[in-house]
Amino acid sequence: MTDVNKAVVILSGGLDSSTLLHCVVKSLKVPVVATLSFYYGQTHAKELASAAKISADLGIANFRIDLSPVMKDFKSALTGKEDIPEGHYAQENMKKTIVPNRNSIMLSIAVGYAISLEAGRVFYGAHAGDHAIYPDCRPEFFEAFKKAEEIGNAWTPVILQAPFMNITKADIVKIGLELGVPFQDTWSCYRGKDKACGTCGTCQERLASFRDADAEDPLEYVDRTSWIDTERKWNETHVN
Amino acid sequence: MTDVNKAVVILSGGLDSSTLLHCVVKSLKVPVVATLSFYYGQTHAKELASAAKISADLGIANFRIDLSPVMKDFKSALTGKEDIPEGHYAQENMKKTIVPNRNSIMLSIAVGYAISLEAGRVFYGAHAGDHAIYPDCRPEFFEAFKKAEEIGNAWTPVILQAPFMNITKADIVKIGLELGVPFQDTWSCYRGKDKACGTCGTCQERLASFRDADAEDPLEYVDRTSWIDTERKWNETHVN
Repeated sequence: MTDVNKAVVILSGGLDSSTLLHCVVKSLKVPVVATLSFYYGQTHAKELASAAKISADLGIANFRIDLSPVMKDFKSALTGKEDIPEGHYAQENMKKTIVPNRNSIMLSIAVGYAISLEAGRVFYGAHAGDHAIYPDCRPEFFEAFKKAEEIGNAWTPVILQAPFMNITKADIVKIGLELGVPFQDTWSCYRGKDKACGTCGTCQERLASFRDADAEDPLEYVDRTSWIDTERKWNETHVN
Repeated sequence: MTDVNKAVVILSGGLDSSTLLHCVVKSLKVPVVATLSFYYGQTHAKELASAAKISADLGIANFRIDLSPVMKDFKSALTGKEDIPEGHYAQENMKKTIVPNRNSIMLSIAVGYAISLEAGRVFYGAHAGDHAIYPDCRPEFFEAFKKAEEIGNAWTPVILQAPFMNITKADIVKIGLELGVPFQDTWSCYRGKDKACGTCGTCQERLASFRDADAEDPLEYVDRTSWIDTERKWNETHVN
C-alpha cells in the first residue's frame, strides 16, 4: 500500500528541483523517503553530483537511475548528439535540447519507484518558464499524465504534484532564498564544464531569474554579462 | 519529424503482441521500423528469445531494452521477488504479478524510441482479458495516457494504438490462426522453464483461449489439463 504522507522527489540537481526538495521538506512538511536522479547520457552529468550533495545534506537517500542504456539511441543536444545551442531559453533552436519523451519516461519510473517504496506522492519541478520549448513541461501534459497514472495504479495510488507549474524561475529563486537553498551547490549549465558558461539557454535563464529576483547567483560563470545583450535583442523582437 | 506511416511495435514475445505484429504488417500494412522488447528482470526472460525470432522471421529489427537496472528494486512476483501465484488469471492473488507502473514506463520509452526512429505510431497488445487485474491495461488508462503523450510530444506527434483493447485473447488466437502466426514460437508462461507449466495464471488463460477458439495450442506443457478444474471452480463462484 502507498502512503500519502510519504513522498519521492525528482531531483536533477538544478535550481528548480533543489528548491522543490527544500520546499517539500521545510514548507509542505511531507516526509521524503527518497530523491531520484536520472542519468540519461547528458553532457552535464555534473548535475548528478549536485543532486547527491543537496539530498545528503538533508539526510535523504538519493537514487541515481541509469537510463543511458535505454536512451543511448535517442537524439538530443543534451546527450552530445548535437551541439548545445546558444541564445534565449525560449528560442526556436532550443528545441534541439529536447530529449524524446524525457518527462514521461522519468515520471513513469518515479511513480514505479514510489510504489515500491510505498510512497503516495511524487513531486517534480516543472515551472512556467519551461512551457515554450518543452511541451512535456506544460500543465496540460501534466494533468493528462497525472490522470493516466491515477487510473493505471488503482491498487497503489500515487499523486503527482508539480507545485511550481505556474510560477516563474525568478519566483523559485525567491522561494529558495527564503528557505536557505544552497544555490552554490546546484548546477544548471548544459555544458557541464568546470564553470557555468553563461551563454547556453539554461545559464541565460538562470542569470535572468536571479536578476528578476534582485539577487546574485553564487555560482561562478565564464561569462556573466553577455546574456543581457541576448535578452535585449530577444525582447525587441518578441515582447510588445 | 515523425511519419504516421512508420510504426514501432512493443513485442513481449507472447501470443498477443506476436499476433499484433503480424496484424500490423499483414492486415494494417503499416511498415514496422522496429519491435521493442523489454528486459526488466522477469523470470520468464525466455520470452525475449521468442520476440527476437518472431521479429527476425518478418525481417524486422528487434531492440532489446534493458530496464533491469531501473527496475531492480521494484517488487513483483514476475521478477522473482515473490512466488508466481497459481490459479485463475482474474483471481485476486494475481495482483502479485503486477510490476509497478510497467505499462506506463514501457509505453513512455516506446514513444521516445518512436520519435528517435521518426515513427509516428506505437502499437501495443493490451486486450480485454487483462483488465481485471491490471489497471494499466484498461481502456481508461490507455486513453488518458495516449492523450498525455500527444500533448507532451507536440513537435513530434506519436499516436498510440492498441487494436486488441476490446477483444478477448480467444479472439486474438483466431486472428493469429488466420494470419499464420507461428504460435509454437511464442512464449507466455510466467515460470520461464523448459516447458510451459500450464498452472500459472497466464498459462491457464492461454489454454482457455485456445479452447474457446476451437484450436490446439502447439506449445508443450507440463500439465495441460488441470486448469480446466481451476476454471470450473472459478466459474462456480464468479459467473452467474
